[in-house]
Amino acid sequence: MNLVLLSEAPGAGVPFVLTGAQARHMLDVLRVAPGHTVRVGIEDGPIGIGTVVKCGADSATLACTFEAHTPPRPSVDLLLALPRPKVMKRLWAQLAALGVGRIILTNAERVERPYFDTHVLDPDVYRPLLIEGLQQARDTRVPLVSIHRKFRVLVEDNLNGMGGDARRILADPGPHPNAGAVIGPGPAGRVLLAVGPEGGWNDFERTMLGTHGFVPVSMGGRALRTDTACVALLALVHAALDASKG
Amino acid sequence: MNLVLLSEAPGAGVPFVLTGAQARHMLDVLRVAPGHTVRVGIEDGPIGIGTVVKCGADSATLACTFEAHTPPRPSVDLLLALPRPKVMKRLWAQLAALGVGRIILTNAERVERPYFDTHVLDPDVYRPLLIEGLQQARDTRVPLVSIHRKFRVLVEDNLNGMGGDARRILADPGPHPNAGAVIGPGPAGRVLLAVGPEGGWNDFERTMLGTHGFVPVSMGGRALRTDTACVALLALVHAALDASKG
Repeated sequence: MNLVLLSEAPGAGVPFVLTGAQARHMLDVLRVAPGHTVRVGIEDGPIGIGTVVKCGADSATLACTFEAHTPPRPSVDLLLALPRPKVMKRLWAQLAALGVGRIILTNAERVERPYFDTHVLDPDVYRPLLIEGLQQARDTRVPLVSIHRKFRVLVEDNLNGMGGDARRILADPGPHPNAGAVIGPGPAGRVLLAVGPEGGWNDFERTMLGTHGFVPVSMGGRALRTDTACVALLALVHAALDASKG
Repeated sequence: MNLVLLSEAPGAGVPFVLTGAQARHMLDVLRVAPGHTVRVGIEDGPIGIGTVVKCGADSATLACTFEAHTPPRPSVDLLLALPRPKVMKRLWAQLAALGVGRIILTNAERVERPYFDTHVLDPDVYRPLLIEGLQQARDTRVPLVSIHRKFRVLVEDNLNGMGGDARRILADPGPHPNAGAVIGPGPAGRVLLAVGPEGGWNDFERTMLGTHGFVPVSMGGRALRTDTACVALLALVHAALDASKG
Protein backbone atom coordinates (compact mmCIF):
# COMPACT_ATOMS: atom_id res chain seq x y z
CA MET A 1 0.00 0.00 0.00
CA ASN A 2 1.65 3.20 -1.20
CA LEU A 3 -1.27 5.47 -0.37
CA VAL A 4 -4.18 5.16 2.05
CA LEU A 5 -7.37 5.88 0.14
CA LEU A 6 -10.09 7.39 2.32
CA SER A 7 -13.69 6.77 1.35
CA GLU A 8 -14.71 10.33 2.19
CA ALA A 9 -13.03 13.63 2.88
CA PRO A 10 -12.43 14.33 6.56
CA GLY A 11 -13.91 17.62 7.73
CA ALA A 12 -11.44 20.53 7.69
CA GLY A 13 -9.17 20.17 10.70
CA VAL A 14 -10.92 17.00 11.89
CA PRO A 15 -8.66 13.93 12.37
CA PHE A 16 -9.62 10.85 10.37
CA VAL A 17 -9.89 7.52 12.20
CA LEU A 18 -8.81 4.53 10.12
CA THR A 19 -10.16 1.12 11.11
CA GLY A 20 -10.29 -2.36 9.56
CA ALA A 21 -7.78 -3.54 6.96
CA GLN A 22 -6.29 -0.10 6.40
CA ALA A 23 -5.59 0.36 10.11
CA ARG A 24 -4.12 -3.13 10.42
CA HIS A 25 -1.83 -2.51 7.44
CA MET A 26 -0.62 0.75 8.98
CA LEU A 27 -0.05 -0.84 12.39
CA ASP A 28 1.27 -4.28 11.41
CA VAL A 29 3.07 -3.73 8.09
CA LEU A 30 4.07 -0.06 8.05
CA ARG A 31 4.43 -0.10 11.87
CA VAL A 32 3.52 3.57 12.13
CA ALA A 33 3.77 5.54 15.35
CA PRO A 34 2.54 9.05 16.25
CA GLY A 35 4.44 11.63 14.22
CA HIS A 36 4.94 9.36 11.18
CA THR A 37 3.48 10.55 7.88
CA VAL A 38 1.81 8.51 5.15
CA ARG A 39 0.47 9.37 1.70
CA VAL A 40 -3.31 9.65 1.74
CA GLY A 41 -5.98 10.31 -0.85
CA ILE A 42 -9.72 10.73 -1.06
CA GLU A 43 -11.66 8.50 -3.46
CA ASP A 44 -12.03 10.54 -6.68
CA GLY A 45 -10.47 13.45 -4.83
CA PRO A 46 -7.05 14.92 -4.13
CA ILE A 47 -3.90 13.30 -2.74
CA GLY A 48 -2.38 14.51 0.50
CA ILE A 49 -0.29 13.74 3.56
CA GLY A 50 -1.58 12.17 6.76
CA THR A 51 0.28 12.60 10.04
CA VAL A 52 -0.37 9.87 12.57
CA VAL A 53 -1.68 11.48 15.76
CA LYS A 54 -2.81 8.37 17.63
CA CYS A 55 -2.48 4.59 17.37
CA GLY A 56 -5.07 2.32 19.00
CA ALA A 57 -5.23 -1.47 19.13
CA ASP A 58 -7.18 -1.61 15.85
CA SER A 59 -7.24 1.97 14.71
CA ALA A 60 -4.96 4.77 13.61
CA THR A 61 -5.89 8.44 13.66
CA LEU A 62 -4.54 10.76 10.98
CA ALA A 63 -4.45 14.53 10.64
CA CYS A 64 -4.62 15.11 6.89
CA THR A 65 -3.80 17.93 4.49
CA PHE A 66 -4.68 17.67 0.80
CA GLU A 67 -3.48 19.17 -2.45
CA ALA A 68 -5.78 21.67 -4.12
CA HIS A 69 -6.40 19.64 -7.29
CA THR A 70 -7.63 16.12 -8.01
CA PRO A 71 -5.50 13.91 -10.30
CA PRO A 72 -7.00 13.58 -13.80
CA ARG A 73 -8.92 10.43 -14.68
CA PRO A 74 -6.63 8.01 -16.59
CA SER A 75 -7.06 8.65 -20.31
CA VAL A 76 -7.51 5.00 -21.32
CA ASP A 77 -10.79 3.12 -21.12
CA LEU A 78 -11.10 -0.65 -21.51
CA LEU A 79 -13.85 -2.50 -23.36
CA LEU A 80 -13.37 -6.10 -22.30
CA ALA A 81 -15.25 -9.26 -23.24
CA LEU A 82 -15.99 -10.71 -19.82
CA PRO A 83 -13.32 -13.33 -19.03
CA ARG A 84 -13.62 -16.35 -16.70
CA PRO A 85 -14.40 -15.30 -13.11
CA LYS A 86 -10.96 -16.42 -11.88
CA VAL A 87 -9.24 -14.22 -14.47
CA MET A 88 -11.58 -11.27 -13.87
CA LYS A 89 -10.93 -11.48 -10.15
CA ARG A 90 -7.18 -11.22 -10.77
CA LEU A 91 -7.67 -8.30 -13.14
CA TRP A 92 -9.59 -5.77 -11.04
CA ALA A 93 -6.65 -4.58 -8.93
CA GLN A 94 -4.22 -4.71 -11.84
CA LEU A 95 -6.48 -2.62 -14.07
CA ALA A 96 -6.92 0.01 -11.37
CA ALA A 97 -3.16 0.05 -10.75
CA LEU A 98 -2.31 0.45 -14.44
CA GLY A 99 -4.88 3.23 -14.75
CA VAL A 100 -8.20 3.00 -16.57
CA GLY A 101 -10.97 5.55 -16.62
CA ARG A 102 -13.71 3.03 -17.37
CA ILE A 103 -14.00 -0.73 -17.34
CA ILE A 104 -16.76 -1.69 -19.79
CA LEU A 105 -17.49 -5.40 -19.56
CA THR A 106 -19.42 -6.97 -22.40
CA ASN A 107 -20.93 -10.16 -23.60
CA ALA A 108 -19.69 -11.77 -26.83
CA GLU A 109 -20.40 -15.05 -28.58
CA ARG A 110 -17.41 -16.70 -26.94
CA VAL A 111 -18.24 -15.48 -23.44
CA GLU A 112 -20.02 -18.13 -21.41
CA ARG A 113 -23.33 -16.88 -20.00
CA PRO A 114 -22.77 -18.04 -16.39
CA TYR A 115 -19.80 -15.67 -16.16
CA PHE A 116 -22.33 -12.84 -15.69
CA ASP A 117 -23.80 -14.39 -12.60
CA THR A 118 -20.60 -14.70 -10.56
CA HIS A 119 -19.79 -12.80 -7.40
CA VAL A 120 -16.74 -11.15 -9.02
CA LEU A 121 -19.17 -8.76 -10.74
CA ASP A 122 -20.65 -7.76 -7.40
CA PRO A 123 -19.51 -4.23 -6.42
CA ASP A 124 -18.98 -5.50 -2.86
CA VAL A 125 -16.34 -7.84 -4.30
CA TYR A 126 -14.69 -5.75 -6.98
CA ARG A 127 -14.68 -2.36 -5.33
CA PRO A 128 -12.18 -3.33 -2.61
CA LEU A 129 -9.98 -4.82 -5.34
CA LEU A 130 -10.10 -1.59 -7.33
CA ILE A 131 -9.20 0.34 -4.17
CA GLU A 132 -6.29 -2.07 -3.56
CA GLY A 133 -4.95 -1.32 -7.04
CA LEU A 134 -5.32 2.44 -6.59
CA GLN A 135 -3.55 2.30 -3.22
CA GLN A 136 -0.70 0.38 -4.91
CA ALA A 137 -0.40 2.90 -7.75
CA ARG A 138 -1.00 6.04 -5.64
CA ASP A 139 -4.09 7.08 -7.57
CA THR A 140 -7.48 8.20 -6.30
CA ARG A 141 -9.60 7.84 -9.45
CA VAL A 142 -11.87 4.84 -9.03
CA PRO A 143 -12.56 3.31 -12.47
CA LEU A 144 -16.18 3.53 -13.59
CA VAL A 145 -17.53 0.02 -14.11
CA SER A 146 -20.43 -0.99 -16.34
CA ILE A 147 -21.63 -4.45 -17.35
CA HIS A 148 -23.39 -5.08 -20.66
CA ARG A 149 -25.13 -8.29 -21.60
CA LYS A 150 -25.98 -7.09 -25.11
CA PHE A 151 -22.88 -6.46 -27.22
CA ARG A 152 -24.76 -4.88 -30.11
CA VAL A 153 -26.73 -2.44 -27.94
CA LEU A 154 -23.50 -1.50 -26.19
CA VAL A 155 -21.57 -0.79 -29.39
CA GLU A 156 -24.41 0.83 -31.35
CA ASP A 157 -26.11 2.83 -28.62
CA ASN A 158 -24.17 3.07 -25.38
CA LEU A 159 -20.51 3.62 -26.27
CA ASN A 160 -20.95 7.11 -27.66
CA GLY A 161 -22.19 8.27 -24.30
CA MET A 162 -19.00 7.01 -22.62
CA GLY A 163 -16.37 9.34 -24.00
CA GLY A 164 -17.50 9.34 -27.62
CA ASP A 165 -14.45 11.24 -28.88
CA ALA A 166 -11.91 8.60 -27.79
CA ARG A 167 -9.70 6.98 -30.38
CA ARG A 168 -10.88 3.39 -30.60
CA ILE A 169 -8.46 0.51 -30.97
CA LEU A 170 -9.01 -3.22 -31.08
CA ALA A 171 -6.37 -5.75 -30.06
CA ASP A 172 -6.38 -8.32 -32.84
CA PRO A 173 -4.07 -11.10 -33.97
CA GLY A 174 -2.70 -10.47 -37.42
CA PRO A 175 -0.30 -8.15 -39.20
CA HIS A 176 -1.50 -4.81 -37.86
CA PRO A 177 0.53 -1.78 -36.76
CA ASN A 178 1.23 -1.68 -33.03
CA ALA A 179 -0.56 0.58 -30.55
CA GLY A 180 2.28 3.12 -30.61
CA ALA A 181 2.04 3.55 -34.38
CA VAL A 182 -1.76 3.87 -34.33
CA ILE A 183 -1.85 6.35 -31.46
CA GLY A 184 1.17 8.17 -32.85
CA PRO A 185 2.20 11.74 -32.05
CA GLY A 186 -0.35 14.51 -31.82
CA PRO A 187 -2.96 15.53 -29.28
CA ALA A 188 -3.21 12.86 -26.61
CA GLY A 189 -6.98 12.67 -26.03
CA ARG A 190 -8.63 9.52 -24.77
CA VAL A 191 -8.22 5.97 -26.03
CA LEU A 192 -10.79 3.19 -25.82
CA LEU A 193 -9.09 -0.22 -26.04
CA ALA A 194 -11.17 -3.31 -26.90
CA VAL A 195 -9.93 -6.74 -25.78
CA GLY A 196 -11.84 -9.82 -26.89
CA PRO A 197 -12.61 -13.17 -25.27
CA GLU A 198 -10.04 -16.01 -25.09
CA GLY A 199 -11.31 -17.42 -28.38
CA GLY A 200 -11.40 -13.98 -30.05
CA TRP A 201 -14.31 -11.89 -31.31
CA ASN A 202 -16.43 -13.61 -33.94
CA ASP A 203 -16.70 -12.13 -37.44
CA PHE A 204 -19.92 -10.25 -36.67
CA GLU A 205 -18.43 -8.67 -33.56
CA ARG A 206 -15.16 -7.75 -35.28
CA THR A 207 -17.02 -6.20 -38.20
CA MET A 208 -19.32 -4.27 -35.90
CA LEU A 209 -16.37 -2.90 -33.93
CA GLY A 210 -14.68 -1.93 -37.20
CA THR A 211 -17.86 -0.17 -38.40
CA HIS A 212 -17.90 1.78 -35.15
CA GLY A 213 -14.39 3.11 -35.53
CA PHE A 214 -12.20 0.51 -33.81
CA VAL A 215 -8.84 0.24 -35.59
CA PRO A 216 -7.04 -3.11 -35.19
CA VAL A 217 -3.63 -3.06 -33.50
CA SER A 218 -1.15 -5.88 -33.20
CA MET A 219 -0.42 -7.55 -29.89
CA GLY A 220 2.81 -8.99 -31.28
CA GLY A 221 2.88 -12.51 -32.65
CA ARG A 222 2.14 -14.29 -29.37
CA ALA A 223 -1.31 -15.34 -28.17
CA LEU A 224 -1.70 -14.20 -24.57
CA ARG A 225 -4.17 -15.09 -21.84
CA THR A 226 -6.76 -12.34 -21.30
CA ASP A 227 -5.22 -11.03 -18.08
CA THR A 228 -1.70 -10.94 -19.51
CA ALA A 229 -2.98 -9.33 -22.70
CA CYS A 230 -4.88 -6.60 -20.80
CA VAL A 231 -1.85 -5.66 -18.71
CA ALA A 232 0.48 -5.71 -21.72
CA LEU A 233 -1.86 -3.66 -23.91
CA LEU A 234 -2.66 -1.07 -21.23
CA ALA A 235 1.08 -0.61 -20.67
CA LEU A 236 1.63 -0.10 -24.41
CA VAL A 237 -1.28 2.33 -24.77
CA HIS A 238 -0.17 4.38 -21.75
CA ALA A 239 3.39 4.48 -23.09
CA ALA A 240 2.13 5.60 -26.50
CA LEU A 241 -0.01 8.35 -24.90
CA ASP A 242 2.91 9.47 -22.71
CA ALA A 243 5.16 9.61 -25.78
CA SER A 244 2.56 11.59 -27.75
CA LYS A 245 2.41 14.14 -24.91
CA GLY A 246 6.20 14.41 -24.77
CA MET B 1 -3.79 -24.27 -25.41
CA ASN B 2 -2.85 -23.02 -28.87
CA LEU B 3 -0.06 -25.53 -29.45
CA VAL B 4 0.67 -28.95 -27.98
CA LEU B 5 4.28 -28.95 -26.81
CA LEU B 6 5.87 -32.41 -26.97
CA SER B 7 8.64 -33.19 -24.52
CA GLU B 8 10.66 -35.02 -27.17
CA ALA B 9 10.69 -35.39 -30.94
CA PRO B 10 8.73 -38.38 -32.20
CA GLY B 11 10.79 -40.68 -34.41
CA ALA B 12 10.42 -39.97 -38.14
CA GLY B 13 7.09 -41.38 -39.28
CA VAL B 14 6.25 -42.70 -35.79
CA PRO B 15 2.92 -41.49 -34.35
CA PHE B 16 3.14 -39.69 -31.00
CA VAL B 17 0.83 -40.81 -28.20
CA LEU B 18 -0.35 -37.98 -25.95
CA THR B 19 -1.49 -38.86 -22.44
CA GLY B 20 -2.28 -36.99 -19.22
CA ALA B 21 -3.36 -33.35 -19.21
CA GLN B 22 -2.50 -32.75 -22.86
CA ALA B 23 -4.66 -35.68 -23.98
CA ARG B 24 -7.53 -34.62 -21.73
CA HIS B 25 -7.39 -31.06 -23.11
CA MET B 26 -7.49 -32.39 -26.68
CA LEU B 27 -10.37 -34.76 -25.94
CA ASP B 28 -12.47 -32.68 -23.54
CA VAL B 29 -11.83 -29.07 -24.58
CA LEU B 30 -10.77 -29.18 -28.22
CA ARG B 31 -12.98 -32.29 -28.76
CA VAL B 32 -10.70 -33.59 -31.49
CA ALA B 33 -11.55 -36.59 -33.65
CA PRO B 34 -9.44 -38.56 -36.13
CA GLY B 35 -8.54 -36.38 -39.11
CA HIS B 36 -8.47 -33.13 -37.09
CA THR B 37 -5.20 -31.21 -37.03
CA VAL B 38 -3.59 -29.31 -34.16
CA ARG B 39 -0.48 -27.15 -33.87
CA VAL B 40 2.34 -29.04 -32.24
CA GLY B 41 5.90 -28.21 -31.21
CA ILE B 42 8.90 -29.91 -29.67
CA GLU B 43 10.43 -28.38 -26.54
CA ASP B 44 13.28 -26.16 -27.78
CA GLY B 45 12.63 -27.52 -31.25
CA PRO B 46 10.51 -26.72 -34.29
CA ILE B 47 6.77 -26.12 -34.62
CA GLY B 48 4.63 -28.38 -36.77
CA ILE B 49 1.23 -29.88 -37.44
CA GLY B 50 -0.20 -32.98 -35.80
CA THR B 51 -2.99 -34.96 -37.42
CA VAL B 52 -5.10 -36.96 -35.00
CA VAL B 53 -4.99 -40.62 -36.06
CA LYS B 54 -6.61 -42.22 -33.01
CA CYS B 55 -8.52 -41.17 -29.89
CA GLY B 56 -8.54 -43.40 -26.81
CA ALA B 57 -10.32 -42.94 -23.50
CA ASP B 58 -7.34 -41.04 -22.06
CA SER B 59 -5.00 -40.72 -25.01
CA ALA B 60 -4.74 -39.15 -28.44
CA THR B 61 -2.34 -40.30 -31.13
CA LEU B 62 -0.87 -37.75 -33.53
CA ALA B 63 1.04 -38.10 -36.79
CA CYS B 64 3.33 -35.05 -36.80
CA THR B 65 5.29 -33.11 -39.39
CA PHE B 66 7.65 -30.31 -38.34
CA GLU B 67 9.15 -27.22 -39.91
CA ALA B 68 12.84 -27.30 -40.74
CA HIS B 69 13.90 -24.54 -38.35
CA THR B 70 13.45 -23.89 -34.64
CA PRO B 71 12.02 -20.50 -33.56
CA PRO B 72 14.69 -18.15 -32.18
CA ARG B 73 15.02 -17.78 -28.41
CA PRO B 74 13.15 -14.60 -27.29
CA SER B 75 15.62 -11.73 -27.23
CA VAL B 76 14.70 -10.44 -23.77
CA ASP B 77 16.07 -11.86 -20.52
CA LEU B 78 14.68 -11.00 -17.10
CA LEU B 79 16.70 -10.42 -13.94
CA LEU B 80 14.10 -10.46 -11.19
CA ALA B 81 14.43 -10.01 -7.44
CA LEU B 82 12.53 -13.04 -6.18
CA PRO B 83 8.95 -11.99 -5.33
CA ARG B 84 6.56 -13.59 -2.84
CA PRO B 85 5.83 -17.23 -3.71
CA LYS B 86 2.20 -16.46 -4.57
CA VAL B 87 3.31 -13.80 -7.06
CA MET B 88 6.12 -15.94 -8.50
CA LYS B 89 3.69 -18.79 -9.03
CA ARG B 90 1.41 -16.52 -11.05
CA LEU B 91 4.36 -15.22 -13.08
CA TRP B 92 5.90 -18.40 -14.53
CA ALA B 93 3.29 -19.01 -17.23
CA GLN B 94 2.92 -15.32 -18.03
CA LEU B 95 6.69 -14.84 -18.47
CA ALA B 96 6.91 -17.84 -20.80
CA ALA B 97 3.90 -16.57 -22.77
CA LEU B 98 5.33 -13.07 -23.16
CA GLY B 99 8.68 -14.52 -24.24
CA VAL B 100 11.87 -14.50 -22.19
CA GLY B 101 15.12 -16.24 -22.99
CA ARG B 102 16.26 -16.47 -19.38
CA ILE B 103 14.64 -15.96 -16.00
CA ILE B 104 17.40 -15.02 -13.55
CA LEU B 105 16.03 -14.91 -10.01
CA THR B 106 18.10 -13.12 -7.41
CA ASN B 107 18.26 -12.25 -3.78
CA ALA B 108 18.22 -8.59 -2.68
CA GLU B 109 18.02 -6.85 0.67
CA ARG B 110 14.26 -6.53 0.43
CA VAL B 111 13.69 -10.17 -0.57
CA GLU B 112 12.68 -12.31 2.40
CA ARG B 113 14.97 -15.34 2.82
CA PRO B 114 12.19 -17.95 3.18
CA TYR B 115 11.08 -17.14 -0.39
CA PHE B 116 14.04 -19.24 -1.61
CA ASP B 117 12.79 -22.36 0.14
CA THR B 118 9.33 -22.51 -1.39
CA HIS B 119 8.09 -25.17 -3.76
CA VAL B 120 7.47 -22.62 -6.52
CA LEU B 121 11.23 -22.71 -7.19
CA ASP B 122 11.11 -26.48 -7.66
CA PRO B 123 11.48 -27.39 -11.37
CA ASP B 124 8.71 -29.97 -10.93
CA VAL B 125 6.41 -27.07 -10.06
CA TYR B 126 7.57 -24.32 -12.41
CA ARG B 127 8.36 -26.34 -15.52
CA PRO B 128 4.71 -27.31 -16.19
CA LEU B 129 3.77 -23.64 -15.72
CA LEU B 130 6.41 -22.55 -18.25
CA ILE B 131 5.10 -25.18 -20.69
CA GLU B 132 1.55 -23.89 -20.12
CA GLY B 133 2.69 -20.37 -21.07
CA LEU B 134 4.52 -21.60 -24.18
CA GLN B 135 1.48 -23.62 -25.29
CA GLN B 136 -0.64 -20.48 -24.88
CA ALA B 137 1.78 -18.32 -26.92
CA ARG B 138 2.65 -20.97 -29.53
CA ASP B 139 6.35 -20.97 -28.69
CA THR B 140 8.70 -23.89 -28.07
CA ARG B 141 11.63 -22.15 -26.39
CA VAL B 142 11.61 -23.05 -22.71
CA PRO B 143 13.11 -20.16 -20.70
CA LEU B 144 16.39 -20.98 -18.97
CA VAL B 145 15.93 -20.55 -15.21
CA SER B 146 18.66 -19.85 -12.67
CA ILE B 147 18.37 -18.95 -9.01
CA HIS B 148 20.99 -16.84 -7.23
CA ARG B 149 21.18 -16.32 -3.50
CA LYS B 150 24.13 -13.92 -3.75
CA PHE B 151 23.24 -10.72 -5.60
CA ARG B 152 26.81 -9.42 -5.73
CA VAL B 153 28.31 -12.66 -7.07
CA LEU B 154 25.56 -12.79 -9.68
CA VAL B 155 26.11 -9.23 -10.92
CA GLU B 156 29.92 -9.19 -10.69
CA ASP B 157 30.75 -12.71 -11.84
CA ASN B 158 27.82 -14.60 -13.37
CA LEU B 159 25.90 -12.17 -15.56
CA ASN B 160 28.61 -11.81 -18.21
CA GLY B 161 28.35 -15.50 -18.94
CA MET B 162 24.62 -15.17 -19.60
CA GLY B 163 24.53 -13.15 -22.80
CA GLY B 164 27.14 -10.56 -21.85
CA ASP B 165 26.48 -8.35 -24.87
CA ALA B 166 22.84 -7.62 -24.00
CA ARG B 167 21.77 -4.05 -23.43
CA ARG B 168 20.99 -3.80 -19.74
CA ILE B 169 18.05 -1.81 -18.44
CA LEU B 170 16.73 -1.31 -14.95
CA ALA B 171 13.10 -0.49 -14.18
CA ASP B 172 13.26 2.34 -11.67
CA PRO B 173 10.84 4.92 -10.32
CA GLY B 174 11.88 8.42 -11.19
CA PRO B 175 12.15 10.72 -14.20
CA HIS B 176 13.95 8.40 -16.62
CA PRO B 177 13.38 7.89 -20.34
CA ASN B 178 11.06 5.00 -21.18
CA ALA B 179 12.20 1.62 -22.48
CA GLY B 180 11.42 2.57 -26.08
CA ALA B 181 13.67 5.63 -25.93
CA VAL B 182 16.54 3.71 -24.31
CA ILE B 183 16.35 0.76 -26.69
CA GLY B 184 15.73 3.08 -29.62
CA PRO B 185 16.32 2.26 -33.26
CA GLY B 186 19.37 0.35 -34.41
CA PRO B 187 20.46 -3.26 -34.26
CA ALA B 188 18.03 -5.20 -32.11
CA GLY B 189 20.36 -7.49 -30.15
CA ARG B 190 19.41 -8.80 -26.73
CA VAL B 191 18.03 -6.89 -23.76
CA LEU B 192 18.46 -7.82 -20.10
CA LEU B 193 15.71 -6.23 -18.00
CA ALA B 194 16.15 -5.94 -14.22
CA VAL B 195 13.05 -5.71 -12.00
CA GLY B 196 13.53 -5.13 -8.27
CA PRO B 197 11.66 -6.30 -5.18
CA GLU B 198 8.35 -4.74 -4.04
CA GLY B 199 10.24 -2.27 -1.84
CA GLY B 200 12.78 -1.47 -4.57
CA TRP B 201 16.53 -2.14 -4.82
CA ASN B 202 18.54 -0.59 -1.98
CA ASP B 203 21.20 2.03 -2.77
CA PHE B 204 24.03 -0.51 -2.85
CA GLU B 205 22.15 -2.73 -5.29
CA ARG B 206 21.09 0.15 -7.52
CA THR B 207 24.65 1.50 -7.63
CA MET B 208 26.09 -1.94 -8.39
CA LEU B 209 23.61 -2.45 -11.23
CA GLY B 210 24.51 1.00 -12.58
CA THR B 211 28.24 0.19 -12.38
CA HIS B 212 27.57 -2.95 -14.38
CA GLY B 213 25.87 -1.20 -17.23
CA PHE B 214 22.19 -1.15 -16.26
CA VAL B 215 20.51 2.04 -17.52
CA PRO B 216 17.41 3.14 -15.58
CA VAL B 217 14.14 3.31 -17.51
CA SER B 218 10.84 4.75 -16.34
CA MET B 219 7.84 2.55 -15.62
CA GLY B 220 5.52 5.54 -15.84
CA GLY B 221 4.44 7.36 -12.72
CA ARG B 222 2.50 4.50 -11.15
CA ALA B 223 3.89 2.00 -8.64
CA LEU B 224 2.92 -1.50 -9.79
CA ARG B 225 2.93 -4.87 -8.09
CA THR B 226 5.84 -7.06 -9.23
CA ASP B 227 3.75 -9.32 -11.46
CA THR B 228 1.95 -6.42 -13.13
CA ALA B 229 5.27 -4.57 -13.56
CA CYS B 230 6.98 -7.59 -15.15
CA VAL B 231 4.20 -8.10 -17.67
CA ALA B 232 4.00 -4.38 -18.49
CA LEU B 233 7.77 -3.98 -18.86
CA LEU B 234 8.24 -7.12 -20.97
CA ALA B 235 5.48 -5.90 -23.29
CA LEU B 236 7.20 -2.50 -23.60
CA VAL B 237 10.66 -4.01 -24.22
CA HIS B 238 9.32 -6.44 -26.84
CA ALA B 239 7.47 -3.59 -28.57
CA ALA B 240 10.64 -1.47 -28.55
CA LEU B 241 12.70 -4.34 -30.01
CA ASP B 242 10.03 -5.02 -32.66
CA ALA B 243 10.02 -1.32 -33.57
CA SER B 244 13.82 -1.23 -33.78
CA LYS B 245 13.74 -4.19 -36.19
CA GLY B 246 11.07 -2.54 -38.32
